[in-house]
Amino acid sequence: MFWSKVFIPTLKETPKEAESLSHQLLLRAGFVRMLMAGVYTYLPIGLRVLEKIQGIIRQEMNAAGASELLLPALHPLELWQKTGRDKDLGQVMFQFQDRRGRKVSLGPTHEEVITELLKNNLSSYRQLPLILYQIQTKFRDEIRPRFGLIRACEFIMKDAYSFDQDEAGLDKNYQLMYAAYKRVFSRCGLETLITEADSGVMGGKVSHEFMAPSPLGEDIVLVCSKCKLTKAFSRPEIENAAGSSHTGKEGRSSCPNCQLEMEEVNTTEVGHIFKLGTKYSQAMQANFSDSSGQLKPLVMGCYGIGVSRLISAIIEQNNDTDGIIWPSEVAPFDMIILPLDVTNPELMQLANSLYWELKASGLDVLLDDRDERAGVKFKDADLIGVPASIIIGKKSIDEGNIELRIRKDKSTQVLPKDSAVKLITKWKN
Amino acid sequence: MFWSKVFIPTLKETPKEAESLSHQLLLRAGFVRMLMAGVYTYLPIGLRVLEKIQGIIRQEMNAAGASELLLPALHPLELWQKTGRDKDLGQVMFQFQDRRGRKVSLGPTHEEVITELLKNNLSSYRQLPLILYQIQTKFRDEIRPRFGLIRACEFIMKDAYSFDQDEAGLDKNYQLMYAAYKRVFSRCGLETLITEADSGVMGGKVSHEFMAPSPLGEDIVLVCSKCKLTKAFSRPEIENAAGSSHTGKEGRSSCPNCQLEMEEVNTTEVGHIFKLGTKYSQAMQANFSDSSGQLKPLVMGCYGIGVSRLISAIIEQNNDTDGIIWPSEVAPFDMIILPLDVTNPELMQLANSLYWELKASGLDVLLDDRDERAGVKFKDADLIGVPASIIIGKKSIDEGNIELRIRKDKSTQVLPKDSAVKLITKWKN
Repeated sequence: MFWSKVFIPTLKETPKEAESLSHQLLLRAGFVRMLMAGVYTYLPIGLRVLEKIQGIIRQEMNAAGASELLLPALHPLELWQKTGRDKDLGQVMFQFQDRRGRKVSLGPTHEEVITELLKNNLSSYRQLPLILYQIQTKFRDEIRPRFGLIRACEFIMKDAYSFDQDEAGLDKNYQLMYAAYKRVFSRCGLETLITEADSGVMGGKVSHEFMAPSPLGEDIVLVCSKCKLTKAFSRPEIENAAGSSHTGKEGRSSCPNCQLEMEEVNTTEVGHIFKLGTKYSQAMQANFSDSSGQLKPLVMGCYGIGVSRLISAIIEQNNDTDGIIWPSEVAPFDMIILPLDVTNPELMQLANSLYWELKASGLDVLLDDRDERAGVKFKDADLIGVPASIIIGKKSIDEGNIELRIRKDKSTQVLPKDSAVKLITKWKN
Repeated sequence: MFWSKVFIPTLKETPKEAESLSHQLLLRAGFVRMLMAGVYTYLPIGLRVLEKIQGIIRQEMNAAGASELLLPALHPLELWQKTGRDKDLGQVMFQFQDRRGRKVSLGPTHEEVITELLKNNLSSYRQLPLILYQIQTKFRDEIRPRFGLIRACEFIMKDAYSFDQDEAGLDKNYQLMYAAYKRVFSRCGLETLITEADSGVMGGKVSHEFMAPSPLGEDIVLVCSKCKLTKAFSRPEIENAAGSSHTGKEGRSSCPNCQLEMEEVNTTEVGHIFKLGTKYSQAMQANFSDSSGQLKPLVMGCYGIGVSRLISAIIEQNNDTDGIIWPSEVAPFDMIILPLDVTNPELMQLANSLYWELKASGLDVLLDDRDERAGVKFKDADLIGVPASIIIGKKSIDEGNIELRIRKDKSTQVLPKDSAVKLITKWKN
């Protein structure tokens, strides 16, 4: 892609509204813009990161045998009344009446909707086990939206739901999802701590949270420096449902195994998986007939990833004073080509031919074709965090060379221009 | 994919709620399910069709130099008040207050939001021309949702917006989009009539509609059988904003060129492109500075495709008494493998090996691994409309063969099983 056509409005100043580093960088580097508090536009390079993350999630979900579908955002409120969760979620759920007088809510999550779907469309044990997932926009009426994409009123989640005949089946699917989640976060370049957690308003018996360490993260995980045991510090599932999460400090800081004091780590929740059991299927009479013809409630699990939030969590762990350093699998581009003088036809010809050759070899490439000073281009390339730059300057091409610069350690190497594509694609793979 | 894992709840009976043929087939073939009137879930194979269509649109938009972004569904109402369109759209726009007292609407379209974005993030003629697009969920409080995906309260649109310095630039982008639209619909296997149309509540001077002929279509296009001139029959832009569209019948039925009576064709609108000019940029003060430093309002165009509606329009034109006949580029799968007896290991081994080989050669394949009678499998394969079936029966493999059956004309050909993959991939390309 060509910079001039993509719309990447980078900013020199840090916007005042931004409270966290990731939020500042997302705004400054032209990845997102706020429409109103808690509501964001994904600009073209922000959407590219989102799509890379979604691609990883889809691969890992499909590999685990899950099928993708897409559930609606508009829900009939009566469905929520069946489980009583309209009350549990309370004001967090946007609610209104439509022109026909129907009570409608905007889905903050989809347990009720998918249980209703299965109730009406699955009847026999022969259709089990089944895992369904979606990547979809959720809505929550947050009283205090914060930190950009971290706590938003409109956000993107991956939510998966497993359906089994019995607990043994659920255990198996739960393990499959647990393993898939580890792979997703690792491929996103994200360090996570996994803790056993409260199930909160989701219900069910067992749940695990995937927590990304982050300086401004609002959830605290206790880690034993010796045995690495993690312990979640209890907090309400819907973050603003109750008051402060910093109550009951006493007695929580020593490891039950080692008796050593545990370290407090600030984290952000990026994933949460739950063994729901039959909470929803019983409340909504979502039954199947087993091999002996007996009606039984579906045994369910649910598995969430905060997709848009992941973008922020990744940035919090991958940055330096100059900007973002994207992990390779989620970078908006694999490389950026920087012709230092766009008025020089020789430079531009080489830039263009490298661009098309690298694209043809399967790389995502951005060509900075703006008529800007070299300094501006270097700064912007560092800010948006593309893993590698190809620098095309008059002096080096007179010597038959280009320069390859690695964003992470800022190292540069000189490559002969005629074999550059071959060397770069080899280095990349 | 394996049928047993995908969740394809086909129905033997036609649901009473379905008013049109496409709606019936979408439900019976397990592509969608209704959550409430006008609100639909895309089941896995429905989502696959949606993604194929979206893939075609993205390719054609990107080829025309457009960049993809993603705008929010939640809009501050005050933005709509700036153009007065909160009044124009009236009750079609879902509106409510959030917990903080903000007046919020669910976006039925995005001219205001994108104009505001450009106003705040584009300043110079050097950043022009620019085309931005999104594929996103829209909301309209329809008083009479109908025909499944045709007139829904929650639906998916592609909306693109062009920004230029002057009318000449707009003309150029308009032509680019016009040509891209023709390619999109043709690749979707859809016949369309193109008419010059009213701009309605969108405003602006010139607009063209892309209308798909469809028996139950609510929009009428007049076509001259001799010169092929088309004439839109005027109707409100937001379909339910005004009353009946069947008023003013007199004088509309003869061709201005040939004086012959024109034929009435029932159609469904699938695309609409508009030269907006400066309607939005002037109302919202979205200006750029031109090469002489003078401030001027952006010259805009907007370009919509009803993405989810396209699914229905395609089905209306591609079906027979047994079900859907998907055009190849939008089919949920390229082929379906039908082992006629899943308890026979020899059949299943061949089915599996064909499955993996065809997948490896880049085809989307569905393997019907259900323990069902051959008749059920044939019926379901015809119903969901996969372009080709590979039939694996005991008799034919004893003779060293499989059968390839083409959905469209129901022709079959016998292929030697050992060279089947080679012959099929060759036939497919």
